Amino acid sequence: MSQAFFERHQPVLEQALAAARDRGYWSPFAESPSPRNYGETAAQDGQAAFEQALGKDFALDGVAAEDWVSEATSPFGLALNIRYPQVSPARLIASAQAAAADWRRAGPRTWVGVSLEILARLNRRSFEMAHAVQHTTGQGFMMAFQAGGPHAQDRGLEAVTYAWQEMSRIPDVALWEKPQGKHDPIRMEKRFTIVPRGVALVIGCSTFPTWNGYPGLFASLATGNPVIVKPHPAAILPLALTVQIARDVLREAGLNPDVVQLAAHAAGDDTAQRLALDPAVKLIDFTGSSANGQWLEDNARQAQVYTEKAGVNQVIIDSVEDLKAVVRNLAFSLGLYSGQMCTAPQNIYVPRDGIRSAEGHLSFDDVAAAIGASVEKLSGDPAKAVELIGAIQNEATAQRIEQARALGLPVLAESRALEHPQFPQARVRTPLVLRAEARDVRIFQEWFGPISFVIATDSTAHSIELARETVREHGALSLSVYTTDEQVAEQVQEAAEVAGVSWSLNLTGAVFVNQTAAFSDFHGTGANPAANAALSDSAFVANRFRVVQARRHV
Amino acid sequence: MSQAFFERHQPVLEQALAAARDRGYWSPFAESPSPRNYGETAAQDGQAAFEQALGKDFALDGVAAEDWVSEATSPFGLALNIRYPQVSPARLIASAQAAAADWRRAGPRTWVGVSLEILARLNRRSFEMAHAVQHTTGQGFMMAFQAGGPHAQDRGLEAVTYAWQEMSRIPDVALWEKPQGKHDPIRMEKRFTIVPRGVALVIGCSTFPTWNGYPGLFASLATGNPVIVKPHPAAILPLALTVQIARDVLREAGLNPDVVQLAAHAAGDDTAQRLALDPAVKLIDFTGSSANGQWLEDNARQAQVYTEKAGVNQVIIDSVEDLKAVVRNLAFSLGLYSGQMCTAPQNIYVPRDGIRSAEGHLSFDDVAAAIGASVEKLSGDPAKAVELIGAIQNEATAQRIEQARALGLPVLAESRALEHPQFPQARVRTPLVLRAEARDVRIFQEWFGPISFVIATDSTAHSIELARETVREHGALSLSVYTTDEQVAEQVQEAAEVAGVSWSLNLTGAVFVNQTAAFSDFHGTGANPAANAALSDSAFVANRFRVVQARRHV
Repeated sequence: MSQAFFERHQPVLEQALAAARDRGYWSPFAESPSPRNYGETAAQDGQAAFEQALGKDFALDGVAAEDWVSEATSPFGLALNIRYPQVSPARLIASAQAAAADWRRAGPRTWVGVSLEILARLNRRSFEMAHAVQHTTGQGFMMAFQAGGPHAQDRGLEAVTYAWQEMSRIPDVALWEKPQGKHDPIRMEKRFTIVPRGVALVIGCSTFPTWNGYPGLFASLATGNPVIVKPHPAAILPLALTVQIARDVLREAGLNPDVVQLAAHAAGDDTAQRLALDPAVKLIDFTGSSANGQWLEDNARQAQVYTEKAGVNQVIIDSVEDLKAVVRNLAFSLGLYSGQMCTAPQNIYVPRDGIRSAEGHLSFDDVAAAIGASVEKLSGDPAKAVELIGAIQNEATAQRIEQARALGLPVLAESRALEHPQFPQARVRTPLVLRAEARDVRIFQEWFGPISFVIATDSTAHSIELARETVREHGALSLSVYTTDEQVAEQVQEAAEVAGVSWSLNLTGAVFVNQTAAFSDFHGTGANPAANAALSDSAFVANRFRVVQARRHV
Repeated sequence: MSQAFFERHQPVLEQALAAARDRGYWSPFAESPSPRNYGETAAQDGQAAFEQALGKDFALDGVAAEDWVSEATSPFGLALNIRYPQVSPARLIASAQAAAADWRRAGPRTWVGVSLEILARLNRRSFEMAHAVQHTTGQGFMMAFQAGGPHAQDRGLEAVTYAWQEMSRIPDVALWEKPQGKHDPIRMEKRFTIVPRGVALVIGCSTFPTWNGYPGLFASLATGNPVIVKPHPAAILPLALTVQIARDVLREAGLNPDVVQLAAHAAGDDTAQRLALDPAVKLIDFTGSSANGQWLEDNARQAQVYTEKAGVNQVIIDSVEDLKAVVRNLAFSLGLYSGQMCTAPQNIYVPRDGIRSAEGHLSFDDVAAAIGASVEKLSGDPAKAVELIGAIQNEATAQRIEQARALGLPVLAESRALEHPQFPQARVRTPLVLRAEARDVRIFQEWFGPISFVIATDSTAHSIELARETVREHGALSLSVYTTDEQVAEQVQEAAEVAGVSWSLNLTGAVFVNQTAAFSDFHGTGANPAANAALSDSAFVANRFRVVQARRHV
């Protein structure tokens, strides 16, 4: 059965391997929710399935609940009231270990086949997932569909692809024949077996539970490790659905479904710590705050720890062809999901003496005002705006807007609460944009949420230096640069190499700095404090398995 | 120039890539010191060069000595009296950083080309290196030639090969073209730049300074990192020669020779600690004691740390075709370099009720006595024996023989001091083999040196269990099994997968468990406490560089 899964998906795997090598555009999972891609009834079916689940106990076959937990609140105010079975860390670990031996023996083709089948089924349930992601993270529906569904599936497939690439280069068996001059050669048969590292733990975040969770989940699963998926207590449903589907596939393949388990738990308890410190846990994938990520790196020493933490993303404006196109693109990036993307820009550097443009000199105030106006314009039509900016995932982020206001900086775009036409209880805030000086140290830290600063610098050289040093000290997942001067682009390239951050030049069209595409863009570099690994590359998968060799004479 | 190096060695690199994929026998560096391979005068030239260096200041162009250090003693008693320039850790780091930017900008083809040229030149100086290795490590000349020369070069080349394999799969540039239905596609150009991690540190050992040092040195160098090579204070010369050659090649390539530096220092000072904890050091490769390796893993948290530490290597004897062939192979393994190889067997398990053989039942005592006799026989001809067993690298290892005797266990082969015909001061000891019981906890730890135990177990199942648990607790780099029963072999395979150790079956010929061949055998697995990485695989190189991406519309 599991071999059948591998064979079924092998053509896609082959394409994925080629895509990861060429790094052009490629995805097997349609990002458009059109009926042409997903079928005429997919949208209604997905919505119905989501609504069916509301107010009920979530079904995870074969799991004996010791307690029950629910998401506390929904950013859109919808009452989910779904109860998830809670299992103690000790029992989760014991069950993972009990499932480990057969999973190890199943071998790479089964690990990869099962992983690919899970992804294919996740894809078919993208509409149901979209509602689950929307009502836990606060993303607008379209983003929840794309980022929570096909784009997350792409990132999962990408991890499986790299895992297969690394594993499949190890031959099962080799003949070693060493010449001995006139004598017969020495001949040995060598067998190579891929072995997993141990129990893997995936710690999900509240904003992109699937997109950020799938790379680690599938990288560990596809290399033979049983995986415990610990969702953020505020965003359980998307990962619970994922685990449910994974267990179905495992069961169908005749395997123990405890190869993938859900560690649902209530906010504030010590589930994450107890799991992370268990000696059996050898792999941890984490997305979340710098404090929690650092704690894992410092304390879960028995495990290989992959972290994506916080950062300060930056924009350098040196010179422009068309300011309107620049600020339109930038405003969209600032507004998208209310700046709650780990790649959303925060600090925008503009020389205080202004910039060159095709229409002539533009003062700092011209640029700052244009950014502010463009951001304000986003919320001109609230019904449209809420689709873009979504809802604020949690109250702490909403309160951070107040803290930013309290800095007392001049306001370029005011943050306002908007009423959502469909969900009156939704926590919706438009982006706040403030004007700041480069010497203001308070802004050189992460202000997570719809908060950004247009910062007056001494020059573009100063902007580049600020960007470089901020990346080195605080980390960053994105850097966006606007310049018409190829020499400035070269200086940015040098700074980016030194600081270890990827960057985008002159984004004025339909590509936004927040977005990265699987198989083409590496998400994060692993070279600055924002993340210790990139999604995905060889380094992300190569340490998740080892090779045990047996040799004998033939 | 450096591009020329790449082109010159590209054919070898292509063969190496194929060899690492097929894992058959392959080496570009002849292991036989025959004049046919190295030229008529190579042997004399190498010896002359070695003797020329004795009693002099070691020449490292462009290095300003702050002090001078020498190896304290030679295992063969030869007075080396070579003085090496000592440079403070702070200055070494500053010089590495000063050389780093140009080295980074030189790019992968230069990093790999320079690395391959260094290896080619090291090969030509294999005789000189053999003397240097012999008189620092205590290895017999032939082993010093092979393991210190061509085999070490193989392992260096292997690391470069994996580095190139991982780096070359990242395209320099990609065109990303995303369809937009009826509209023009979005087209972006994406550039990918490989960037190094930072300053790399290689901490050498006293027994195999080149063989164990080259994988880390060349893996870091070939991925663009400047490398500081810190030799063991008792085995400076082999790595000093290596650094000298590396600096020559760098200078010829028009690069700053400080890309590779020597950190010679006296025993007992804090050079290693100061270098390892420097924030600029991002990669550390270490071979040595478990205590020092663990200290690095615990404290050098700013760096990626690769360690090869101690272990307890084991032999399981279940049943044999021909006991004579078994014990002959085993005795050779025990004698080779006096058990000072990290892969040398120590604990030999034999069921107390004896074993099956083609000639009928053999009692435990039959087997134990045969092992003892075969080991004693090794030293029957002292002049031949010293070539095999070499000298004891340091006095602590010699004293460990006394500590083993003090266990009060029955002696199967007595350790004796032999006089070396050429070097009367040489510290030569024949192997000690003791008889032990499986319940004796004192033997389940590393007894580094010419010390081994033949251990009575309850059964082969008990032997396998002991082997598995010893690997899990203490680590191991090798496991050797003798059985004529395929079912036992399967049980060992299962135990090896669980414990994460590679194993060899029925070695009775010209292959010894201590030996691993580059491009075919992984040295270590990274899956048990003896080493956290294998030499070499993707995992060993993939974290030594990162990718910085730049994208723009086209």
